[in-house]
Amino acid sequence: MLIHDMSAQDCTALLARARLGRLACACEGQPYITPISFAHDAGFLYSFSTLGKKIQWMRTNPLVCVEVEELATSQDWSTVIVTGKYEELPDTPEYEIRRRRAYDLLRRRPAWWEPGYVKTVVDGKIRPIEATYFRIVIDHVSGRRGLPDAAPGRMSSASREPGAGWLRRIFADASR
Amino acid sequence: MLIHDMSAQDCTALLARARLGRLACACEGQPYITPISFAHDAGFLYSFSTLGKKIQWMRTNPLVCVEVEELATSQDWSTVIVTGKYEELPDTPEYEIRRRRAYDLLRRRPAWWEPGYVKTVVDGKIRPIEATYFRIVIDHVSGRRGLPDAAPGRMSSASREPGAGWLRRIFADASR
Repeated sequence: MLIHDMSAQDCTALLARARLGRLACACEGQPYITPISFAHDAGFLYSFSTLGKKIQWMRTNPLVCVEVEELATSQDWSTVIVTGKYEELPDTPEYEIRRRRAYDLLRRRPAWWEPGYVKTVVDGKIRPIEATYFRIVIDHVSGRRGLPDAAPGRMSSASREPGAGWLRRIFADASR
Repeated sequence: MLIHDMSAQDCTALLARARLGRLACACEGQPYITPISFAHDAGFLYSFSTLGKKIQWMRTNPLVCVEVEELATSQDWSTVIVTGKYEELPDTPEYEIRRRRAYDLLRRRPAWWEPGYVKTVVDGKIRPIEATYFRIVIDHVSGRRGLPDAAPGRMSSASREPGAGWLRRIFADASR
């Protein structure tokens, strides 16, 4: 396998077609990751979340990182890393346009669900999600791509050994 | 969709069958994520990486977070978050047993490749990867699972709207 740096254009194209990423924030040196559904728009990643640890940490320290990946096989993949700053989009007149933009972009996503339809179970009680909308102001983007090299023997272990769970499904699907 | 907390047993089972995760480290308040191939072993996650930014940051600040997920559909998923500390496994007699354990566990992975077979392209020149082995000493594990609730109408948007890329492949595969 050969690992290449991706061009800025390829990184942006991947962000534009991606729907799911992982967001990392940090508090007092401790990083924390959660999956997010997001939508890319020139210079920004729009998303929403429950009002929990992640939002509290980003309010204290707005420096974040978002990772997005496309996996075809274990030897054919792309991953893009975004660093940027958290900007909350509260339900106030000042943020109305940005908040509407977030909503318009996110509702086009296939993994989108109206946050009000999602419920959490806490201490045995079901309660609706309370969504906080935000966007990441993109500061820097980089990406790497792994591709099989010319030696077939070097590709054999991934296809020979049995996988498990979703990685196996991805591999099986990609091989068709 | 209903979101539940996962039991400790379910979290451990997911870590045991997982092969791929995302590791976050942090330096001066800036988090940074990269995908990792790892193997779980009682209390530890074993992995390796090139000697780059991630390793340098973890040597400075060993506090890390690892996220692992299983996606069946946009409304049927599990995600486990591990926080812990980085411990490097250098090629010295003192670390020989732990390093051998890392190697033995990782080589069973379907996405495993002998690090020496992987090459990076830097400034147009191909060079072999220089692998640094390490393990994460697990400090805390938590997990959440999303499941469709009883209202079929709330599940329809994910299957109705067209997806793109690997998420669509996962959805299509999981629906069979």
